[in-house]
Amino acid sequence: MTKDRLQQQMNFLVEMDKLKTVYRRAYLAADPQRRENTAEHSWHVAMMALILQETAGEEIDISRVIRMLLVHDIVEIDAGDTGIYDKKASLDKAVREKRAAERIFSLLPEDQQLEISGLWDEYEKGISAEARFARAVDRLIPLIHSYYTGGKRWQEDGITFEQVYAVNQTISQNCPRLWQFAQSLIYDSVSKGYLKGSG
Amino acid sequence: MTKDRLQQQMNFLVEMDKLKTVYRRAYLAADPQRRENTAEHSWHVAMMALILQETAGEEIDISRVIRMLLVHDIVEIDAGDTGIYDKKASLDKAVREKRAAERIFSLLPEDQQLEISGLWDEYEKGISAEARFARAVDRLIPLIHSYYTGGKRWQEDGITFEQVYAVNQTISQNCPRLWQFAQSLIYDSVSKGYLKGSG
Repeated sequence: MTKDRLQQQMNFLVEMDKLKTVYRRAYLAADPQRRENTAEHSWHVAMMALILQETAGEEIDISRVIRMLLVHDIVEIDAGDTGIYDKKASLDKAVREKRAAERIFSLLPEDQQLEISGLWDEYEKGISAEARFARAVDRLIPLIHSYYTGGKRWQEDGITFEQVYAVNQTISQNCPRLWQFAQSLIYDSVSKGYLKGSG
Repeated sequence: MTKDRLQQQMNFLVEMDKLKTVYRRAYLAADPQRRENTAEHSWHVAMMALILQETAGEEIDISRVIRMLLVHDIVEIDAGDTGIYDKKASLDKAVREKRAAERIFSLLPEDQQLEISGLWDEYEKGISAEARFARAVDRLIPLIHSYYTGGKRWQEDGITFEQVYAVNQTISQNCPRLWQFAQSLIYDSVSKGYLKGSG
């Protein structure tokens, strides 16, 4: 291994530190005063996949799911977090993230560039069993945060039951077992007054 | 799968949120005003292992290394972060962490309790090839943070070259290839005035 190769890898890893400064819409269940950043989110969602792997409705390679989740949001270093209910920002999300992927992954040696961008692309397309399960878990986690903070983010952003139900169809399609759980959180949120209908 | 089993897993995963509120001594390279928390640290160190796996001097199962690093600091939810140069706190670290492990891992269903505490124990003992590589990478990351923040934490805590050199012998013993790189960071830190000798 040449010194240049290791230096390229280190430059990429130092760049990764920036993901700790990208803040999302979700508030922490453990500290509802603070929003979650994307680096800690990425750890939490990888832990969730590890613990919940048996809920996947199809055979999955869990180590591939975990690697996918470690890298799935790296593009937010340049593109920022795009809120799932933010229709305006969602319009050019794909373009912004593609540009970010090109710059950030190109810091790596070429073989690793292909490997990491391959994982990211697989996640984005969501067509493998691993990507489907990863996307379901990634969608479940903000629901858990909203539930355990009494719907703080929903109320601030004026999000309704109908929007939450629609956005979480990703879980319904990708992981029926987790959808049962997600539905119970949504209905309980309505019953507790955390979440209101649009009517 | 019973409802109870899934509920136990979810209780554990909600508990995990607390790791985002455990702050370490290291300052972020991307934002030297803020200390790093243990959840984002755990993501970063897992990413480092993924990217640097070829530097391990022996054959390793990288997916085991990554799982180990995802869980290696969970006990800090109860035990807090124990600074590597804090001799006083290090005295009862093992006792505090063992007690934390018992409480936190027992939230999981029994089979997963064994799996996760097994990974943690393997990391702590550092006797497998996977644990050795994981420990080397975990030791490298604060060095990178100190270097890229101009030695901020070393200066605040009055840490000397001799202490840094001694503490990083873990890297020398566990991963000679990364030790070469770590040494170059240490010497360059001295040469740039980030780090001073004790004499």
